[in-house]
Amino acid sequence: MRLDRSRADAIVGRALEEDLGSGDLTSNAIFPKTLRVQASIVAKEQGVLAGLPVAEMVFHKLDAELGWTPKKQDGETIKAGEVVAELEADVRTVLAGERVALNFLQRLSGIATAAARLAAAVRGLPVRVLDTRKTAPGLRLLDKYAVRVGGARNHRFGLYDGILIKENHIRAAGGLHEAVSSARQHVPPGLKIEVEASNLKEVEEALEEKAEIILLDNMSLQEISEAVRLIAGRAEVEASGGVTLENVREIALTGVGLISVGALTHSVKALDLSLEVQ
Amino acid sequence: MRLDRSRADAIVGRALEEDLGSGDLTSNAIFPKTLRVQASIVAKEQGVLAGLPVAEMVFHKLDAELGWTPKKQDGETIKAGEVVAELEADVRTVLAGERVALNFLQRLSGIATAAARLAAAVRGLPVRVLDTRKTAPGLRLLDKYAVRVGGARNHRFGLYDGILIKENHIRAAGGLHEAVSSARQHVPPGLKIEVEASNLKEVEEALEEKAEIILLDNMSLQEISEAVRLIAGRAEVEASGGVTLENVREIALTGVGLISVGALTHSVKALDLSLEVQ
Amino acid sequence: MRLDRSRADAIVGRALEEDLGSGDLTSNAIFPKTLRVQASIVAKEQGVLAGLPVAEMVFHKLDAELGWTPKKQDGETIKAGEVVAELEADVRTVLAGERVALNFLQRLSGIATAAARLAAAVRGLPVRVLDTRKTAPGLRLLDKYAVRVGGARNHRFGLYDGILIKENHIRAAGGLHEAVSSARQHVPPGLKIEVEASNLKEVEEALEEKAEIILLDNMSLQEISEAVRLIAGRAEVEASGGVTLENVREIALTGVGLISVGALTHSVKALDLSLEVQ
Amino acid sequence: MRLDRSRADAIVGRALEEDLGSGDLTSNAIFPKTLRVQASIVAKEQGVLAGLPVAEMVFHKLDAELGWTPKKQDGETIKAGEVVAELEADVRTVLAGERVALNFLQRLSGIATAAARLAAAVRGLPVRVLDTRKTAPGLRLLDKYAVRVGGARNHRFGLYDGILIKENHIRAAGGLHEAVSSARQHVPPGLKIEVEASNLKEVEEALEEKAEIILLDNMSLQEISEAVRLIAGRAEVEASGGVTLENVREIALTGVGLISVGALTHSVKALDLSLEVQ
Amino acid sequence: MRLDRSRADAIVGRALEEDLGSGDLTSNAIFPKTLRVQASIVAKEQGVLAGLPVAEMVFHKLDAELGWTPKKQDGETIKAGEVVAELEADVRTVLAGERVALNFLQRLSGIATAAARLAAAVRGLPVRVLDTRKTAPGLRLLDKYAVRVGGARNHRFGLYDGILIKENHIRAAGGLHEAVSSARQHVPPGLKIEVEASNLKEVEEALEEKAEIILLDNMSLQEISEAVRLIAGRAEVEASGGVTLENVREIALTGVGLISVGALTHSVKALDLSLEVQ
Amino acid sequence: MRLDRSRADAIVGRALEEDLGSGDLTSNAIFPKTLRVQASIVAKEQGVLAGLPVAEMVFHKLDAELGWTPKKQDGETIKAGEVVAELEADVRTVLAGERVALNFLQRLSGIATAAARLAAAVRGLPVRVLDTRKTAPGLRLLDKYAVRVGGARNHRFGLYDGILIKENHIRAAGGLHEAVSSARQHVPPGLKIEVEASNLKEVEEALEEKAEIILLDNMSLQEISEAVRLIAGRAEVEASGGVTLENVREIALTGVGLISVGALTHSVKALDLSLEVQ
Repeated sequence: MRLDRSRADAIVGRALEEDLGSGDLTSNAIFPKTLRVQASIVAKEQGVLAGLPVAEMVFHKLDAELGWTPKKQDGETIKAGEVVAELEADVRTVLAGERVALNFLQRLSGIATAAARLAAAVRGLPVRVLDTRKTAPGLRLLDKYAVRVGGARNHRFGLYDGILIKENHIRAAGGLHEAVSSARQHVPPGLKIEVEASNLKEVEEALEEKAEIILLDNMSLQEISEAVRLIAGRAEVEASGGVTLENVREIALTGVGLISVGALTHSVKALDLSLEVQ
Repeated sequence: MRLDRSRADAIVGRALEEDLGSGDLTSNAIFPKTLRVQASIVAKEQGVLAGLPVAEMVFHKLDAELGWTPKKQDGETIKAGEVVAELEADVRTVLAGERVALNFLQRLSGIATAAARLAAAVRGLPVRVLDTRKTAPGLRLLDKYAVRVGGARNHRFGLYDGILIKENHIRAAGGLHEAVSSARQHVPPGLKIEVEASNLKEVEEALEEKAEIILLDNMSLQEISEAVRLIAGRAEVEASGGVTLENVREIALTGVGLISVGALTHSVKALDLSLEVQ
Repeated sequence: MRLDRSRADAIVGRALEEDLGSGDLTSNAIFPKTLRVQASIVAKEQGVLAGLPVAEMVFHKLDAELGWTPKKQDGETIKAGEVVAELEADVRTVLAGERVALNFLQRLSGIATAAARLAAAVRGLPVRVLDTRKTAPGLRLLDKYAVRVGGARNHRFGLYDGILIKENHIRAAGGLHEAVSSARQHVPPGLKIEVEASNLKEVEEALEEKAEIILLDNMSLQEISEAVRLIAGRAEVEASGGVTLENVREIALTGVGLISVGALTHSVKALDLSLEVQ
Repeated sequence: MRLDRSRADAIVGRALEEDLGSGDLTSNAIFPKTLRVQASIVAKEQGVLAGLPVAEMVFHKLDAELGWTPKKQDGETIKAGEVVAELEADVRTVLAGERVALNFLQRLSGIATAAARLAAAVRGLPVRVLDTRKTAPGLRLLDKYAVRVGGARNHRFGLYDGILIKENHIRAAGGLHEAVSSARQHVPPGLKIEVEASNLKEVEEALEEKAEIILLDNMSLQEISEAVRLIAGRAEVEASGGVTLENVREIALTGVGLISVGALTHSVKALDLSLEVQ
Repeated sequence: MRLDRSRADAIVGRALEEDLGSGDLTSNAIFPKTLRVQASIVAKEQGVLAGLPVAEMVFHKLDAELGWTPKKQDGETIKAGEVVAELEADVRTVLAGERVALNFLQRLSGIATAAARLAAAVRGLPVRVLDTRKTAPGLRLLDKYAVRVGGARNHRFGLYDGILIKENHIRAAGGLHEAVSSARQHVPPGLKIEVEASNLKEVEEALEEKAEIILLDNMSLQEISEAVRLIAGRAEVEASGGVTLENVREIALTGVGLISVGALTHSVKALDLSLEVQ
Repeated sequence: MRLDRSRADAIVGRALEEDLGSGDLTSNAIFPKTLRVQASIVAKEQGVLAGLPVAEMVFHKLDAELGWTPKKQDGETIKAGEVVAELEADVRTVLAGERVALNFLQRLSGIATAAARLAAAVRGLPVRVLDTRKTAPGLRLLDKYAVRVGGARNHRFGLYDGILIKENHIRAAGGLHEAVSSARQHVPPGLKIEVEASNLKEVEEALEEKAEIILLDNMSLQEISEAVRLIAGRAEVEASGGVTLENVREIALTGVGLISVGALTHSVKALDLSLEVQ
């Protein structure tokens, strides 16, 4: 589960800047002198940990001499009361970084926890649970990292690394044929063409245009089943729209190979963690 | 509800960069020529709209000639099916900005909707519902804007514009007295000193130190009531921890003047909106 | 031939900064007052024009009131003595931007001219001439734009938007099978897997792994022909290495669908253009 | 041959960002775990090496633990097959940095090789071969460094560190006298005034204005000789325009002290080098 | 006296960039090879030292191997001839950083010296000498640090961390009542409201509005005394305008608790220091 | 007196950011709605105005619809009570920009006023008063602009656009001869070599090395006179060190052509101006 540290570092830097601004008035006023303290990051509820290296980067950016001892690692299940990491640093570092580090950890662990539940729900089936581009603006790198940590997979990262021809493209291009054939002329050789379809007629059109992936958008379970039969292996099949922990296995059982879930990243429930100075 | 446009602009710029990277492969491949289209942003469920000026900035950044006609404004309640704004622009602009604009709108409207529900729940009582610093890293400016749009109020923006002495400060300083008196010596003259207390004994200590605001952290309703009586107007009182739509009115009825709610921004449920090209 | 203006703008800004630094000592010393002049950009040799919008951006950045009249457009063949564009601006703007604008125009027109010659050489054959990632550091966006202007096509833009498994990957992974099967597990669904082969045995291995594109690296004409026969439509075929204007048609005639040419961008011969104040 | 490392570092950073974008899809997919490898940078043709410290910076930026053993140094002549440097690093570092490092090395060595040939051609004569501002936009620092490595000399770095009054300045100022006398009034005391002349009459005018350097622009050999005689040591003399490896010695023999060559940097032929993982 | 090193670092970086631009022509020309030298920073007149860590950052940014031995520390009184710090570094580092380091040291020590004189003048009285926002643009962080080093105190850092309602606000709001009551509705809970008054009538109005701090602007000594009597402990009192070393004690004796002095930072007299290579 | 607006714009942007941070709490709280006001910038004492275009940029950055009517222009003498400019803008713009605009105006007018006095003191003599690199870090562009506005001249802008060999260079190089001859080998052709001398012996050495400018550092009037006689037109002569308004004419009368004054920019006395909302 590789994390691009240099890009994460820029995100961490902005988050600290946002919170620290011209300085931590409280700690600077209380602790004018150097004071080394120990602290623990502790889970307050059960879930899948994600973002620990990001939390470390937060404190490390404030104190290059940081002592950091991880007790868990990203991808592990943590339980209420368990210590996730111990740190030793100047008290001002600990208190300046506390909220920012927890904001990252809580969001990312929340995503990983949800991803793990979805992945578990389809275990054993030949399907991949995917994220979408519905991430918090500025946090896509980390949101998508947390998805991988949780055991789900990433769809394209942005508009620059995949071709997905959606309803709106088709309408503006004047038809699916027009959109796909034009795309095929200009696209770099290494990219597959994915086409969105919202009914069986559109699935047929996409097949005629030799779409390499067909995205079934907001279809009922029955429609998805029919689409899978119709496609019959001539293209990869992705289901999307209204996927929940409750219905994901049923969707998978239709035979689609890919299921993408917007809520994974657009409606995150933070996992509760806290930081305690000893 | 002022929005700091130049800082919002930087956030919007980064979000676009994140999604667009080296360019929108799909639209560039399909639409090599200029093609003016009209599109609508439409609500798919009911809630309080927030972030419409941010969505406009997204498209405006991509096309300075953008035609933009808002049909609703931030703070209004919107219903499923209602058009929120109409836009006219080059098709590539519309499709390049669609996801980013919706990502902002859905998160911010989600926050405003939750804030509005909390504010409604305490209507008529002399209390202010406040947000916290538990925002998505990099989005604090906008998350806090959405809180105001929804009708709740902002607590401090960061570590730089308020003094809040918490459990961890007190422990590291060797006691509440030590922490507060040291702070009082160094703090700029315009700032009040707020002290966190988790039981009545700490409330008493905070009163002795003449804290100007006392934060009751994770106390039961009964403890809060006792603390309010004990404080008796000698300091402002803030309740925090475990506040929900269900219990916020009861907490308010204890007589606290401030109630802060982390979930408002750390566990956002996106409001569903979509963009439709005509 | 879309040019991403906002990213081009950043490149233009840096180029101006590099040349102007703390200011144009000569012009500032000679022309302390505002003095409007007219000037022309003139071709000094024949070739394909590319980069005129970039040149305009250079001057526009220095003078928002710039008068700019293009006489030719990107993609047109220009001849020695022909006026490419006329401009009217403050004399300091014209002289501060002259060199930077010409540096862009000369390089990009040099690339477009070479691309056009290669494209002409394979006219009528079912093959695409592609560029590579061998661009001048920092100028990839523009180098690749000039390739398109000249009539050739772009390969992937960077490491982030395509999968190409090369000799070095295979060696480090311990074999072609290991490399491809591992990649297939982790790659986003929209990307094809391209594999480099330097002999027929490797071509066979790539076919076994169901590589979607096979890159024939530095093979002789005869080897390429054999490889094309062997592949027999089971994968797309790309030839690369030592391609010149002289041999490109012969290579195309082997039946490969893609030919990539590093020299297009790594060994550019500038096209001669100049700027003349009237 | 000092290289300004901090400015080079910014150029390297941008080049990596341009190529890596949101990450190296291929290597991240193939090598999910840490894997240390050794690799060599090898010359494929003969020339003068330049840019090795820049190549090191590329890999070092990706892996602070990089093992780097230079086998040659900038300014040395390298032959086909010779190892230029050996490196040891995580395989992902090696493969992510390979193309960017080679793009720098190949361009800079190409420049140094050309510079060395020009310098050799005038060996023994009291003349300096100079570069110009005709560099690749954004790469001037490095292009000019490579010129020095090859044994030629740098002209001014930009518009900010030298005074050169050209044809266009003179035309816009209404005459050479007007241009030079106005410049003399405003220029900082430490700068010489250089004036461009395209015929002997202009040389005379420049002498009258006590120009400290006279640039003979695009003159024939005979004109240059006459100009040198006319100037007779009253100013330094620079020849420019159409200088090639073939005619540079003849030009030098006219007695000019400075010869500047645009093609050194505007029409670079890359030197062939490659990277091989062991 | 905490200095925010990461923000100081950005200021130092810009200052170096401003002075170094494309490189130190003189040192690069004279010292092509590495040459380690020792140098001292020496006081040329008496004053309070401030900015030594900033000077260190200047040299450290140029040479990570810098040898740096402080002989004095910020806040100490230094006398003409005393060595303030010794350094050992590459000669190019020393000479490239010299002027920038001295520019910081001389300004900051000038401010600290003035602050120390003001603080000494009111010693023993229950009053705090404060700075203002009248700092050199871009240097507020350091100017305010130097004020603290000298023994005076900081007022708010900017518009973002304090509420001060001035004459212009009151006029535009249509009255003091309108301004204060509107502010009270929107201000975060942790901030006091300070109101400027220029006569006793305005002091009375401010008291009616329960302003928490009243700023007496440009009042005579007698008016200040009357205002203090009138306020009678119901608000904190700040005097401002025309404060000098001569009159500061008299003002303090009126009983105000805060005195703010713009000249501390807007009219700085540099303290003379120099750097000497051994 | 050209001002480089794009670089000034970056300085203005940083100054606003420094003061505004996360927003103007006071104005945002008082003026939640748009309210157009008129205001004047008024001189409070006599001096030479400088920086008015910078002040306009401050307000313009906050409000693109700014109404701005200059009543004076840079370089004019202004008297107490005179209106310098009138503006019309949203009240929040006026109050957010007020302090930053005045901080620029007061510093720059202070510098211009001092420069004008020095220039007046040597009127009629063949000498130029120059500034130095002793400017406020980050403000060199503007400090030097103000010097020109006041009627003095600029020395080099930084280490990148001039050659000045000082005491420290000479000591580290092992002698004046070593330093100058090495410099002469590496310096771009357009730059003169200036050498610092602190006694007549060093002046003689500098002459032997054919220094093009000799800087007499901290010499007495008598030494300066002797040096001028000794140099006898063989080099330009600059006097520096301890120059004041009182002694500048005497120094000029020795026959030096250049006099540089550090205090012009390192010890600025702000000129008093204010902003008044009507």
